[in-house]
Amino acid sequence: MAFPLITRQLALSLQKNVWLGASGCRYVSKTATKTQVEFDYNGPSMKTSVPGPRSQELTKQLGDIQNVGAVNFFCNYEESRGNYLVDVDGNRMLDLYTQISSIPIGYNHPALLKLMTNPNNLSTFVNRPALGILPPENFPDKLTESLLSVAPSGMTRVQTMACGSCSNENAFKSMFIWYKNKERGHSTPSDEDLRTSVINQAPGCPDLSILSFMGSFHGRTMGCLATTHSKAIHKLDVPTFDWPIAPFPRLQYPLEEFSRENAQEESRCLEEVEDLIVKWRQKGKPVAGIVVEPIQAEGGDNHASPDFFRSLRNICRKHGCAFHVDEVQTGGGTTGKFWAHEHWGVDDPADIVSFSKKLLTGGYFQKDELQPDKAYRIFNTWMGDPAKNLFLAEVLNVIRRENLLEEVTRSGKALLNGLYELQAQYSGILSRARGQGTFCAIDICDDETRNRILLKTRDKGVILGGCGDRSIRFRPALIFKEYHAHIFLNIFNDVLAQLK
Amino acid sequence: MAFPLITRQLALSLQKNVWLGASGCRYVSKTATKTQVEFDYNGPSMKTSVPGPRSQELTKQLGDIQNVGAVNFFCNYEESRGNYLVDVDGNRMLDLYTQISSIPIGYNHPALLKLMTNPNNLSTFVNRPALGILPPENFPDKLTESLLSVAPSGMTRVQTMACGSCSNENAFKSMFIWYKNKERGHSTPSDEDLRTSVINQAPGCPDLSILSFMGSFHGRTMGCLATTHSKAIHKLDVPTFDWPIAPFPRLQYPLEEFSRENAQEESRCLEEVEDLIVKWRQKGKPVAGIVVEPIQAEGGDNHASPDFFRSLRNICRKHGCAFHVDEVQTGGGTTGKFWAHEHWGVDDPADIVSFSKKLLTGGYFQKDELQPDKAYRIFNTWMGDPAKNLFLAEVLNVIRRENLLEEVTRSGKALLNGLYELQAQYSGILSRARGQGTFCAIDICDDETRNRILLKTRDKGVILGGCGDRSIRFRPALIFKEYHAHIFLNIFNDVLAQLK
Repeated sequence: MAFPLITRQLALSLQKNVWLGASGCRYVSKTATKTQVEFDYNGPSMKTSVPGPRSQELTKQLGDIQNVGAVNFFCNYEESRGNYLVDVDGNRMLDLYTQISSIPIGYNHPALLKLMTNPNNLSTFVNRPALGILPPENFPDKLTESLLSVAPSGMTRVQTMACGSCSNENAFKSMFIWYKNKERGHSTPSDEDLRTSVINQAPGCPDLSILSFMGSFHGRTMGCLATTHSKAIHKLDVPTFDWPIAPFPRLQYPLEEFSRENAQEESRCLEEVEDLIVKWRQKGKPVAGIVVEPIQAEGGDNHASPDFFRSLRNICRKHGCAFHVDEVQTGGGTTGKFWAHEHWGVDDPADIVSFSKKLLTGGYFQKDELQPDKAYRIFNTWMGDPAKNLFLAEVLNVIRRENLLEEVTRSGKALLNGLYELQAQYSGILSRARGQGTFCAIDICDDETRNRILLKTRDKGVILGGCGDRSIRFRPALIFKEYHAHIFLNIFNDVLAQLK
Repeated sequence: MAFPLITRQLALSLQKNVWLGASGCRYVSKTATKTQVEFDYNGPSMKTSVPGPRSQELTKQLGDIQNVGAVNFFCNYEESRGNYLVDVDGNRMLDLYTQISSIPIGYNHPALLKLMTNPNNLSTFVNRPALGILPPENFPDKLTESLLSVAPSGMTRVQTMACGSCSNENAFKSMFIWYKNKERGHSTPSDEDLRTSVINQAPGCPDLSILSFMGSFHGRTMGCLATTHSKAIHKLDVPTFDWPIAPFPRLQYPLEEFSRENAQEESRCLEEVEDLIVKWRQKGKPVAGIVVEPIQAEGGDNHASPDFFRSLRNICRKHGCAFHVDEVQTGGGTTGKFWAHEHWGVDDPADIVSFSKKLLTGGYFQKDELQPDKAYRIFNTWMGDPAKNLFLAEVLNVIRRENLLEEVTRSGKALLNGLYELQAQYSGILSRARGQGTFCAIDICDDETRNRILLKTRDKGVILGGCGDRSIRFRPALIFKEYHAHIFLNIFNDVLAQLK
C-alpha cells in the first residue's frame, strides 16, 4: 500500500505545468492556490478512449450475469486517489460525478485507510449486528460523534438505515404513524385497526398520501417511487399510489436577475400545493406529509428560493402535514453548508431530514414527536451498518480539520463563475448555469448534444453526469479545489470549442 | 487482537465438564463429538441477569436518540466468538438467534478477520462504488466466485442489493416489468405509457398485483409490506395495495404422522390461490407474481410440503404469473441444504429467488427472461456493496471446507430429537416441534409463558428468538454442532423443569 504521495510543492508545480499547457487555456488562477490535496494526482492522464478495451471485455463478461446497459466503464479503485478515478485501462480522470455524488472526501483518503488498519475496528466490519435489538457498546457514542454532531436544527433523534430508499420509506412510515396518532388523539390502535391492517384493509391500512413535486426523485422502492417523478424509465410498469403531485417552480437563472418572475412562479406552485392538500383531503386521502428536495437533483438541478421552502414549511404547519426534506443528494457539505436547508436560514427547517450517499450510511433525523412510541414499528434486521458510522465519523473529522465547507464555497464559486463565462461565450450551446457550492449544473441546447459533450469530456479526462432532460450536473467531492475547477473548465472549453 | 483460541482437546474436556455439571442433565452425547469449533468458547458464562446494569445504562443513553423498545441488551462484539455472544456486562451466551438469523459462521470467524487484514482488500471497503455504472475490475469474478457458485437451479443471473427489503422490492418490480412486456408482446412502451407513468397513472403505472400468503413476511418497505401479513405492528397506519392474500397451510406436526390431513389442508390453500388469481384478474388487478417463503419464518415457522410448492409453481405456469421464492431467512444453509427450495427436488424451482441475512449482501437470482432488457429500470446508487461480496466468498469457502451443510443436518437432528423428547416430557407446555436442519421451532402453550421462557433461558446463557403468536424459533449459525444442541437442551430442560 505504498502511495506515491505528491507533496504540496510538487503538486503545485506539476499543477502549473498542466494548467498552462492545456490548449485554449483561459483559466489561469489569479490568486495563489490556497490548499492542495496531498494524496491527489496532478491531473488527468488518458491512454485510451473510454470505455477502453479492458472495460469492454469486462462489460461483456458482466453482461452474462446482469443488465449492463448502465455500465460506463470498470474501475481500478486501488489506483484511484483523491479527485481522480482510474479505470481498468489505465485512464485517470478528474471525477466531478463521484459515484452519483456519494464519495465525500475522494478516493482512498489516507484517514479512511488508516481507520481500516486499526485492529480495534476489525470486529465492527466482521460482525454486522441487528442494530435494533443488539447494538454494540459504542453505538450511542458513535452516533453522537458522527450523525448527531451534524444534526439539523431542532432535531436530536436519528435513525440509521441501509440506503437512501430505505431511509425515505421509513421516513414516510413515521409520518403516516404520526398523522394517524394525531387523528386518534392517542397512540393506541383499536382492535379493528389491528385486525384490518394485517389484511391490507382500512382502517388499519388507511388511505393516506404523501405530496411530492413534479421532477422530484426520492428513490425507487414502491413507497419512494410513488413520490418520484423525474423520468418515466424509473416508474414504468410499476403499480403505484394515487398521491398528489404539485408543480415545482421552474425558475429563471441567474436567480438574482429574475427575482420578480421567480417569486411569481413560486407563488403559483405554492397555491397549487394548498389546493392539492384540500382536494386530496376531500378525496378521502389526506396528505400526511410533504416530501421535497432542497434542490431537485436527478430531475435536472431545479432550485427554489429560501422563501419558497419557508412558505412550504408554513403550509405544512397550517394543514397539519409533516414536512420531510430529502437531503440524500444535497446533504453532506456539497452546497457549502452541511445541509442545503441551512441556506433557508430557519430554526425549525423540517420534521424529518433524510440522508444517504455522502453520509455513507442511510438514515433520517426526526423531531421527537415523529418518532413512533412503540417498538418494531420502524424496524428491520440491520437498521444500517455500524461500519459506515465509523467511516462517517472520520469523514466529519476531515471536513472540520480541513475546513472543507469553506473550500467547497471557494471552489464552487470558481466553478460557477467559469460556467457563466463559458455560457456567455457559447450561448448557442450553454444556458442556465446555476449552483450552490460545488452543487452546480448547466443546460445544453439538446439531449443529443449533452450526451456528446459528456462522452467527449470523458475522453479528455473529466467525468461528469447528466440530469433532467438536457442538464449536466457537477458533483465533485468535498476535496475539490479551485485548481480542479480550472482543470475542468479548460477541458470543457476545449470540448465546446471543437463542437462549435 | 490476541484471541485465546481453545484447542480441540481443551475444548472437548471443558465441554464435558460443563455438560455433566449441568443440573437436570439428560443429554450426554452418546456418540463422540465429530467436530469442534476451534475458535469457540467452551460454554455460557453468566455474571448478571440480562440486561445487566451496563446494558441498562446504555439503553437509557440510546433512548435519547432512538426508540429503544426493541433493544434486548448491548453487545461486546470484540469478545464474542463462534456460537457465543458476549454482552457489555461480561455475560457470555450461546446464540441460537444470531442477529435474527444473519450471522452465517459465528462471531469473529478467523477467516473473516484474516480477510480484513489483507491490504489488497482495503480499497473495497474504503471506496464504495455505484455498482450499476462503475463496477470494480474484480466484480464479475467476485460474483462468479461467491453468489453464482450457489445459484439456484436454472438461474445464471444475479442482482445484488443492500438489504432484504430492497431485494424483494426490486424482485417485485422485475416481475411487473416482465408481466407488462408479456402483455405488450414486446418491451417498448407507448408514449402514453411513458407520459402517464411519471404522474402515477395507468397505463404507465398499471394496476398489477402480487399474491402473498397470510402469515408471510417479506419486508417492511411499502411494496414488501403489502405482501407481509405476520403481525399488525408491522403494517398499522401504513397505506397499502389491494393485493390478494391466500391462506398458508396450517399443518399438523410431525408432518409424517399427518400426511393425509396435511395434504387436504394444502389442497384447500392451493384452490384458494387459483380462485384469487381469477378473482383479481376479473377485478382488473391481475396477479403478476406469487411470492412465498419456503418456511414462513417471522410468521411462526410454518412449513409446507414439497408437493405444495411444486403445485404452486405449476399454478404460476398455468396462469402466467412469475414465481418468487423469498429465501431471505431460509437461504444460506441453515435447513441443511444451501437453499430451502432444494428440498422440493425440482429442476426449475422459481423465476426469482431473493436472499439477504446469512448471505451478508441482499439480492436476487433470476431467470434470463425476468431481467429487464433496458438499463436503469432496476437501479439505485449502490446496488449492494462489494465489501459484502468479499465476506460472502470467504463464508462459502468455509462452508465447503468444513462441510457445514452436513454438520447442520447432524446438529439439526440432535436439536429436533431433543425437542421431541422435551415435548413428550412437558406436553402441557410444548407442542408442534418442527424443523429442517437447524431451522427449528416449537410452540409454547401461550404467549406469556413463551416470553417468560425466553427471558429465563437467556438468564441461563442461551439466546433464542420468538416468532408467530407463541413459537420459539431456533436460528443458530452454521457452525452450531451437536454438542451445542446438547448444551442448549440441558439448559432448556432446566428452565422447563422450574416452570412446571
